[in-house]
Amino acid sequence: MQYKILNSILYPSDIKKLDIASLPALCEELRDYIITCTAENPGHLGASLGTIELTVALHYVFDAPNDKLVWDVGHQAYCHKIITGRKEQFHTNRKRGGISGFPNIAESEYDAFGTGHSSTSISAVLGMAVAAKLQGDNSRNHIAIIGDGAIGGGEAFEAMNHAGATNANMLIVLNDNKIAIDQNVGAVSKYLLHITASASYNRFKNRLWNIFSFKKNTSNGFTRFLSKIGNNIKGFLLGGSNLFQSLGFRYFGPVDGHDVIQLVKVFKQLKEIQGPKLLHIITVKGKGLSLAEHNQTKYHAPGKFDPDTGELLPSSADADAPDRYQDVFGNAILELAEKDMRVVGITPAMAPGCSLTIMRDKFPDRVFDVGIAEQHAVTFSAGLAIQGMVPFCNIYSSFLQRAYDQIIHDVALQKIPVIFCIDRAGIVGEDGATHQGAFDLAFLRSVPNLIIAAPMNEIALRNMMFTAYKERTLPFAIRYPRGRGVLPKESRPEMEQIPIGKGRILKEGGDIAFISIGHIGNAVAQAAAVLKEQHGIDSAHIDIQFLKPLDETLILETASRYKTLVTVEDGTELGGLYSAVAELLESKQLNNRLLHIAIPDEFVPHGAPDILYKELGMDADGIVQTVLKMA
Amino acid sequence: MQYKILNSILYPSDIKKLDIASLPALCEELRDYIITCTAENPGHLGASLGTIELTVALHYVFDAPNDKLVWDVGHQAYCHKIITGRKEQFHTNRKRGGISGFPNIAESEYDAFGTGHSSTSISAVLGMAVAAKLQGDNSRNHIAIIGDGAIGGGEAFEAMNHAGATNANMLIVLNDNKIAIDQNVGAVSKYLLHITASASYNRFKNRLWNIFSFKKNTSNGFTRFLSKIGNNIKGFLLGGSNLFQSLGFRYFGPVDGHDVIQLVKVFKQLKEIQGPKLLHIITVKGKGLSLAEHNQTKYHAPGKFDPDTGELLPSSADADAPDRYQDVFGNAILELAEKDMRVVGITPAMAPGCSLTIMRDKFPDRVFDVGIAEQHAVTFSAGLAIQGMVPFCNIYSSFLQRAYDQIIHDVALQKIPVIFCIDRAGIVGEDGATHQGAFDLAFLRSVPNLIIAAPMNEIALRNMMFTAYKERTLPFAIRYPRGRGVLPKESRPEMEQIPIGKGRILKEGGDIAFISIGHIGNAVAQAAAVLKEQHGIDSAHIDIQFLKPLDETLILETASRYKTLVTVEDGTELGGLYSAVAELLESKQLNNRLLHIAIPDEFVPHGAPDILYKELGMDADGIVQTVLKMA
Repeated sequence: MQYKILNSILYPSDIKKLDIASLPALCEELRDYIITCTAENPGHLGASLGTIELTVALHYVFDAPNDKLVWDVGHQAYCHKIITGRKEQFHTNRKRGGISGFPNIAESEYDAFGTGHSSTSISAVLGMAVAAKLQGDNSRNHIAIIGDGAIGGGEAFEAMNHAGATNANMLIVLNDNKIAIDQNVGAVSKYLLHITASASYNRFKNRLWNIFSFKKNTSNGFTRFLSKIGNNIKGFLLGGSNLFQSLGFRYFGPVDGHDVIQLVKVFKQLKEIQGPKLLHIITVKGKGLSLAEHNQTKYHAPGKFDPDTGELLPSSADADAPDRYQDVFGNAILELAEKDMRVVGITPAMAPGCSLTIMRDKFPDRVFDVGIAEQHAVTFSAGLAIQGMVPFCNIYSSFLQRAYDQIIHDVALQKIPVIFCIDRAGIVGEDGATHQGAFDLAFLRSVPNLIIAAPMNEIALRNMMFTAYKERTLPFAIRYPRGRGVLPKESRPEMEQIPIGKGRILKEGGDIAFISIGHIGNAVAQAAAVLKEQHGIDSAHIDIQFLKPLDETLILETASRYKTLVTVEDGTELGGLYSAVAELLESKQLNNRLLHIAIPDEFVPHGAPDILYKELGMDADGIVQTVLKMA
Repeated sequence: MQYKILNSILYPSDIKKLDIASLPALCEELRDYIITCTAENPGHLGASLGTIELTVALHYVFDAPNDKLVWDVGHQAYCHKIITGRKEQFHTNRKRGGISGFPNIAESEYDAFGTGHSSTSISAVLGMAVAAKLQGDNSRNHIAIIGDGAIGGGEAFEAMNHAGATNANMLIVLNDNKIAIDQNVGAVSKYLLHITASASYNRFKNRLWNIFSFKKNTSNGFTRFLSKIGNNIKGFLLGGSNLFQSLGFRYFGPVDGHDVIQLVKVFKQLKEIQGPKLLHIITVKGKGLSLAEHNQTKYHAPGKFDPDTGELLPSSADADAPDRYQDVFGNAILELAEKDMRVVGITPAMAPGCSLTIMRDKFPDRVFDVGIAEQHAVTFSAGLAIQGMVPFCNIYSSFLQRAYDQIIHDVALQKIPVIFCIDRAGIVGEDGATHQGAFDLAFLRSVPNLIIAAPMNEIALRNMMFTAYKERTLPFAIRYPRGRGVLPKESRPEMEQIPIGKGRILKEGGDIAFISIGHIGNAVAQAAAVLKEQHGIDSAHIDIQFLKPLDETLILETASRYKTLVTVEDGTELGGLYSAVAELLESKQLNNRLLHIAIPDEFVPHGAPDILYKELGMDADGIVQTVLKMA
């Protein structure tokens, strides 16, 4: 496609120069540009295709960066990035050194607030709106763009509960596409569907905006008129019942989120209305790419694809590549569930990402997608467990931060045997700083009564799940990374119970001993081989398996035999395995030399995992170098 | 009062034997019993006085412990405890070795789920209800009792969003008393007030339950009738708009929560209705004790009082006692706010508890009580800060666990200079395991970009607040305990900026060096004096002041001069100051002897703080003993 209009667009000011009639054509060019770029350099395709008209309309009407736009989650902001000075960098999206796949305040003044996790935008926007009031600025606009999945997250509700009782000048754009990563669940989604489908909506949907448009020049009189009739009209339209009005918001909509001209008109009018208000728009995830529209989960973040047809290109991984850990989890829980009806799976809106779909296909009634609701997922699991069920609660490491209090207060304190399967632990890569699973080992270690394990390979993951399933005296956390294991696909022996709190000696050595936890132990094994072969350094290797309870006997034995110990973990250097070993050595007054390889005390940016691990000195080569430098 | 009926009541089965007509008299006896006991042995008076009729009616109709009652927060459960086998132990409430002030599954099978923090009950009850369904039990009842403050917490919304889309057999009793600890805020509270105050409610409130009561013997036909008309009646009553119906709940009410006979009738009817339902009851916090009814915040958890008049007895602290840290905070923020209009205060429903009331009285527009919403409080603060305000976000240590992800993702990652004032850090005492502030040092230390400080006295708290106010390049956390400082009231020099990341040498010594952080340094100072005077052991004492950045220079210097180091902190032994010092010594291969005094890796139960500190070996005497044992 020739980008006749887009070629002249670098910043929102360029869009404002356009006649409103040319906006649909611009949207089509943007859509083509995103498809073309994302086909080659994969990213969050579906969400961004759904928000093109919204983004163009927002920037046409509002005056960013003075007006504040906060994109909840932020993976729908590609169009925003492209038209706010980052068109030429867009091909670097999510690459190390390139632009971030999420809004980032360090990247652009147009990114008013960094996002990545869900349901934060309303809180942030309310803070900005209240700041404006206190600073005497009544004209600045503050806009949160949030999906129908994210608005079900607890923090979004907390923020609406607060905002609805203020007179803050803010607008929530509820981008209702009926899908987050997976199909949305929950009462709010049902409710929104009801609004959209209701006869009264279909009858009156156009009438409403005709009323609003009857006088184009907004004036005080018009604003007052809207103030008076706003809620009443809506009440009429919706049969009088509206969730958002209950929360103190003025509700408008639903409107077609792909009609850019109508959106421009609507935003112009909403701009004149003070106070908290919500505009409900209906969009289609993957809009404009037929295959993406019809396979929304698959096209949420597909790999490379043919930009013309949308056909996914074959993955570069060969057919014999090891299984992904998520699939090992998914198959193992299915295996347990087949034998024991008490086994249930819980996920906060990540069923495809954690492969709980494998069990859901067979036992839909025993898999619970609770929505974007990590806090609830954990306490809900506790409720299931206390009544005799065996819940496997699967949450990504960085999202588990949301449920820290529930882990402490509802689970560990009561010794309720919830089994946490923590996917995406360690460096996750392209999603960047908000998504790296850097902190779970540290923040979980402080929690009493909690068993914490990390498998070095697929068999270990299966055995740990089986052990947790069998044990059930205490809560049990198993953390494993994004990506693939290391074993041939066919090697799936029967699951076995393993002793809790016991490490494994993988290898004895002569000079130093590695103590690793989890999958990164495979890099250690490679490093040990290189050290031996190329540098004549013979190292021992302990796969400690459990961070808690810690195998103190084995570590002390190792410390007595090897002067130099090197802890290796795929987590922050503050509070995890390194700290645990340091404490132990100190408590025994041992003067071993203790090195550590871990994620440094900083936020790790986006990029391919292998690049990031290399930069952090956490790949096999980095481990070798650390040892050589010491020698 | 003679407890004519209560004397015969030990368990709910005893209540079920009573004629319904005698329930009001039982309630009065229970009220007198709670007032009498709580006057002598202080506790959460107000909330429990408000739920007596509710509790009696629930236990009269439902069949605990088979039916599951979960008390959200749980400080309103005194009556429940008294009539479920713990009447004789009630005088030990909140004392070390006595019964807990909150529901506790280890204490009684009638406590279906332990609580303490807010907004967890609906999640837990839903888990239990889903378990029952999966186990083929369609008769068991699952009931969450939750206040109008707690229902505004994000997790409650997440749970309703999930529950409302299921057919789980559960009942939420919304105990609406318009007040949590402080006056409730937020749109939901306004909304509930609107329901209660609306003309339609006043006109129809009795009529509704007459309709429900028209046929006493419930039957399938009746149930079907209810199923059909339930929401419609409510829709009529409430002018068609209902928040809870939007969330998929069948809404009933509001009804008078102090009419025990009516409540019994209502519960009998609700018992016949399957699926998620919500009963809205109106109660008065402090009901039956006039002073408590009229001073609800003060009587939330008053000290000792005269059981006849309700008059509070003078506090045992003499007039010259040092100020409470919370008041030092409250006065310091007021001082800053007076000079700088950018200074704002944020609290999640704890304005009286953290003394933000001091600033609120003078600057009501710059103090934000956001409701029970820790997650929102933190991101909202970030939004304020990024637009140039200077937010002091005050959250109790154990509640800050709820906002861990927001601290990481919204604040630290973006280096937004939110100032966290973390009250109730360390052992808090009578509120017990759910409320001890044991984990903040550990879980905050893992977070990059965060400054973490803890003051040893009132002047240090003021200086740290001033330093945070002046600095504003990074987020800044200041943690301090419940209770009083150590300095004479009048000693309040001007606030001074202190160097970030620098410790103070309080005392040089001969044999060992203490490295302490925060208020517990005062116990160290006492211990040092005793060690010198009584045991001839001369110790140095470092008040490290900052956990992060850590004053490595000072610690290494100290390690070079003293063979034995003793870290002392009022937090868990895993991940905090002890870990930081152990890591540092290990990294330098120093073979000092390192002891530590900290909260052990277990949940600390309830009891008076001095008793708990003694038991944990964390008072001056315990510190002395630790040193002597080592010698």
